[in-house]
Amino acid sequence: MQTNLQLTLDKTLLSGTYLHHNPNGGGRRRRWNAGINVKIGNPERQIDSTLRQLELKSPVPSDVEIANAVAPLHISHLAASLGLSPHHYDLYGNFKSKVLLSVLEDFEDCKDGYYVVVAGITPTPLGEGKSTTTVGLSQALGAFLHSKVITCLRQPSQGPTFGIKGGAAGGGYSQVIPMHDFNLHLTGDIHAITAATNLLAAAIDARIFHEATQSDLALFNRFCPLNKHGKRTFSDVMFRRLNKLGIHKTSPDDLTPHEINRFARLDIDPDSVTWRRVMDVNDRFLRKITVGQGPDEKGMVRETGFDISVSSEIMAVLALTTSLADMRERLGRMVIGNSRAGEPITADDLGLGGALTVLMKDAINPTLMQTLEGTPVLVHAGPFANIAHGNSSVVADKIALKLVGPGGFVVTEAGFGADIGAEKFINIKCRYSGLTPQCVVIVATVRALKMHGGGPAVVAGKPLDLAYLTENVALVEAGCVNLTRHVSNMKTYGVNVVVAINMFSTDTEAELNAVKKAAMDAGAFDAVICTHHAHGGKGAVDLGIAVRKACENVTQAMRFLYPLDISIKEKIEAIAKSYGAAGVEYSEQAEKQIEMYTSQGFAHLPICMAKTQYSFSHNAAEKGAPSGFILPIRDVRASIGAGFIYPLVGSMSTMPGLPTRPCFFDIDLDTTTGRVIGLS
Amino acid sequence: MQTNLQLTLDKTLLSGTYLHHNPNGGGRRRRWNAGINVKIGNPERQIDSTLRQLELKSPVPSDVEIANAVAPLHISHLAASLGLSPHHYDLYGNFKSKVLLSVLEDFEDCKDGYYVVVAGITPTPLGEGKSTTTVGLSQALGAFLHSKVITCLRQPSQGPTFGIKGGAAGGGYSQVIPMHDFNLHLTGDIHAITAATNLLAAAIDARIFHEATQSDLALFNRFCPLNKHGKRTFSDVMFRRLNKLGIHKTSPDDLTPHEINRFARLDIDPDSVTWRRVMDVNDRFLRKITVGQGPDEKGMVRETGFDISVSSEIMAVLALTTSLADMRERLGRMVIGNSRAGEPITADDLGLGGALTVLMKDAINPTLMQTLEGTPVLVHAGPFANIAHGNSSVVADKIALKLVGPGGFVVTEAGFGADIGAEKFINIKCRYSGLTPQCVVIVATVRALKMHGGGPAVVAGKPLDLAYLTENVALVEAGCVNLTRHVSNMKTYGVNVVVAINMFSTDTEAELNAVKKAAMDAGAFDAVICTHHAHGGKGAVDLGIAVRKACENVTQAMRFLYPLDISIKEKIEAIAKSYGAAGVEYSEQAEKQIEMYTSQGFAHLPICMAKTQYSFSHNAAEKGAPSGFILPIRDVRASIGAGFIYPLVGSMSTMPGLPTRPCFFDIDLDTTTGRVIGLS
Repeated sequence: MQTNLQLTLDKTLLSGTYLHHNPNGGGRRRRWNAGINVKIGNPERQIDSTLRQLELKSPVPSDVEIANAVAPLHISHLAASLGLSPHHYDLYGNFKSKVLLSVLEDFEDCKDGYYVVVAGITPTPLGEGKSTTTVGLSQALGAFLHSKVITCLRQPSQGPTFGIKGGAAGGGYSQVIPMHDFNLHLTGDIHAITAATNLLAAAIDARIFHEATQSDLALFNRFCPLNKHGKRTFSDVMFRRLNKLGIHKTSPDDLTPHEINRFARLDIDPDSVTWRRVMDVNDRFLRKITVGQGPDEKGMVRETGFDISVSSEIMAVLALTTSLADMRERLGRMVIGNSRAGEPITADDLGLGGALTVLMKDAINPTLMQTLEGTPVLVHAGPFANIAHGNSSVVADKIALKLVGPGGFVVTEAGFGADIGAEKFINIKCRYSGLTPQCVVIVATVRALKMHGGGPAVVAGKPLDLAYLTENVALVEAGCVNLTRHVSNMKTYGVNVVVAINMFSTDTEAELNAVKKAAMDAGAFDAVICTHHAHGGKGAVDLGIAVRKACENVTQAMRFLYPLDISIKEKIEAIAKSYGAAGVEYSEQAEKQIEMYTSQGFAHLPICMAKTQYSFSHNAAEKGAPSGFILPIRDVRASIGAGFIYPLVGSMSTMPGLPTRPCFFDIDLDTTTGRVIGLS
Repeated sequence: MQTNLQLTLDKTLLSGTYLHHNPNGGGRRRRWNAGINVKIGNPERQIDSTLRQLELKSPVPSDVEIANAVAPLHISHLAASLGLSPHHYDLYGNFKSKVLLSVLEDFEDCKDGYYVVVAGITPTPLGEGKSTTTVGLSQALGAFLHSKVITCLRQPSQGPTFGIKGGAAGGGYSQVIPMHDFNLHLTGDIHAITAATNLLAAAIDARIFHEATQSDLALFNRFCPLNKHGKRTFSDVMFRRLNKLGIHKTSPDDLTPHEINRFARLDIDPDSVTWRRVMDVNDRFLRKITVGQGPDEKGMVRETGFDISVSSEIMAVLALTTSLADMRERLGRMVIGNSRAGEPITADDLGLGGALTVLMKDAINPTLMQTLEGTPVLVHAGPFANIAHGNSSVVADKIALKLVGPGGFVVTEAGFGADIGAEKFINIKCRYSGLTPQCVVIVATVRALKMHGGGPAVVAGKPLDLAYLTENVALVEAGCVNLTRHVSNMKTYGVNVVVAINMFSTDTEAELNAVKKAAMDAGAFDAVICTHHAHGGKGAVDLGIAVRKACENVTQAMRFLYPLDISIKEKIEAIAKSYGAAGVEYSEQAEKQIEMYTSQGFAHLPICMAKTQYSFSHNAAEKGAPSGFILPIRDVRASIGAGFIYPLVGSMSTMPGLPTRPCFFDIDLDTTTGRVIGLS
């Protein structure tokens, strides 16, 4: 039964909502679409109406100049080109919108498009242009090969934008616009993560404080106060703790003193607390701090620290979750430390799983933006690629695959080199999403391979060594061992590999051919030269054609590197082997942690290695394809809510600092035009 | 010359943009409105089309039940009812939009409406319902008295929502909806403040760190590195520091070693740093902390702390600024501490004024929402009412006054009692905005006045004493001294005062009459009983009529309490006198600070007293209208960018804590409907 119809004549579509009466009582407002499309252009080729031809200049102007020369389309046009109705998204100004999860329901019957992940060779300080290639490939597929395409990217951290790094929206003629929206605030997801992470941190210290000063009964009387009718009740989240404790009573009045103690006293061991506060600012002075020094905190000081927000487990949860209900469960089961008895304490034990979900309820919706050439981009989640899995969100990819449909393409990017980013893409992200890529693109450059072949060190601020600017085929060939290992590693997953050679003007034909040959010898489906930095999508047409062929010619089923039901150590060792390691060495601390997580029942989780991205090994200086080394595991930690164990191979910085002259010196607002200056 | 026209057929209006060619070259996109209005309803009474009749229930259901029973209108309808075109605002989903400052330009020629500020008697734990009255009065004016009206409210802090306090969107049938949008994230303004405040904090510690480890020349070479052409340049923000130092050179190469030292070395005295980090979370363990304990920070530890975000000076800047250009200047001149030589160090000295403005560029736009009865609300800025001035933003009020136009009403609220909130509204906010209120509403309740008359203490969780539930005219009369002093204080400003008696069901006619009489005897323009909590706008119709009459019958010009050109102490004493104090006593520290601010050239600023809201005096226990006391000034601080000096009368908590059972235990998301549960 449909009643209470509300109609909206939107820019493009007559749509509305109606109250759907549930036969069991109650009602729920549902979306409805009249299908009266008033779009301009050919409805059969909707996507084309948003495309934009670039006016290419040579030499390539600065990223800002290119971005500012293009007037972005109102984002509703891009949404319409994807078949979305206005009720499928929330506008955030003119150039961003949040695509709602209801799209998954409404497009449930659609088949998925092709799924392409862009990874890289082992990164060097020279930069390989992985994000730029991801955007350029998408522009080629959309604007030149007339396919439906969506690019799924990570949201960059705002903090580093003001430090050394500048923006992260691609480069040259392959960028996401508007650049300042992409780099700053976006639609508030990282701010929500900051708020949620810090609320949990505050709740931990406050709980320790209140437990230290109150008896079991006093605590209990506060948790379950008498209501107007002289009765006590449990709130919903309390039943989660009761269930965990095996207490199956529904009235607080029925609890025995022993049960009251177990229920009301978490008895958190302050030294076991792994949950840290976060901030989306490069603030090195917060790396290690002492809290609780105020006179009212009664001397309960504790050493802890802040990480940058994107390193929060909540970011990893956002990236791996599949629905609101799933996110509620993951947030609730995040482990913040142990009780003194060694039991893991969760956010739900603290009563916070629901409140954290409320804080994150809008963040779960991916943000729609556009490339320079007018193809759609979903920006969503940006977890660290070492202590987390470094991939954009599962929900964005799922939505995108439905929206592009059969024959369309979803192009996403995996952080760091393929040994880390693509490995985690498959073994963690795809494992949780159930999705399968048809093609892995590995981005390589001649100059980076020269460095892997033994080229001289590159020092920021110093002119580039001639080795990188003049022909040296032997150096390139020597460095191709790195590319070769990445290609063959990816082949073991049963996925077609296309190598994208991101060309620089100083590269010679012989050098480029050397890379092509190495790639093909290693079993790549194809290896293609591309110039999307200088030419936008046009410069990646050959890459697009190769990727399309690779997707159309899948011959095997995808395989994981390891099953989940082997031990934590066996999983670590499987990954280490893919790095070329001869074995793994565990510190005493690592052994202890593995034992603890195993006894706590977390051994079934996938593994997320926190290793340097600059080498296959643990030693950043070892370029090329080192082998035979013993991989040292310094410590082992876990993100139980996100759903992985992360061994630490060396130490990972989770809070960057500001240099002497941060780039904020150049950033300003033109207060007359409202335009951002100096952000690049 | 108009070219490159882009048209949009919006829900209500045919509008567009065109490229306006500047005769001096360059172009700027301008808004254009065809004036073809396709709105449904009578265009002469546009505002009515959004109004909504409430179905009142008795007894009054919970706030959540009432809020959830109403389906809010799409915010574009409210915008249209105010005469706004789609290019005047950015949507943030369906129920919030940011109104752009360009409205001020486009409505420049419109005359302002009436300006009404709602203040209160000295607050008690019983609650007087000031926000509820602000909303109820607006609903009455808009939905029953058929005036154009906009309510201008502060954005509540998100942190306390998860602690004790619950939401802050009004109550009963006088609320802002959707409640969870109002209380959580909103459109990200507080998150932007958090990010900007913390970026500045990080920059301070990083600068101290880098200066400690580098020579003048090394610093200088990093600040002004050689570019490709072997030249050095200053960035724009550096010229601000050079100007301050009296160095009028344009090339870094021309600086003498002494000038290099003065330019590059801020020499911040770590003990003088008053800038603290912030977080929008109740986190008591961050009140006092030690930072810099990481091994890489070389032992440069420092004691500092976090405040809650809304207490940041940047919030006060947002509330007091009048334009983007003004905000840029205010953010740049914020003082973070002194050099060792005693010179004030600003955000611009650190190179950050521009970057902070970029972070705040969207936050400057007020957020449009709606009341239960469909009248428009602008939510914007929420500075503390003790260490800051406790009023919503100047820009929201300015926009609102233009939008309602002559005969229309802007109703805003001032924090705490009238001694603090309304005093600062006039002497700080109106001084900076140049606006003048026609009417001050003072909200009083019978039960609160009983407490001021000597009624028994009220303890949370304990049943209310009978004194508050049964007739006691003498007690009410005794308490009216509090109301009387607020009324006569406000009268000295030359503004008409209307007393709103917010009625409870237990109030008797004799008690209500006693309040009325006291108000009229004190010189109130009128005193009116209202029942908007139970009846929405209908319950505040009499109040609306009284306010309208008060606005139409202004007989005097507004006067400030003190001029700016007297000394800091004279200004403090003028305010103290309005409290009933016989004199002021300064601590040694306060004397020192007054001397410092005077010598630094800040004596011309208005004064923002940080005093308890629970008494006219510094002693929260002194109810009624104490007089003859000596007001002790413990310390004096300053928010130079916001533009006021704030003496501390007693200690103010700037970081709340979480109780044993925070209300987050009740908050959850219904993951099927997406609805927030338990937020009240």
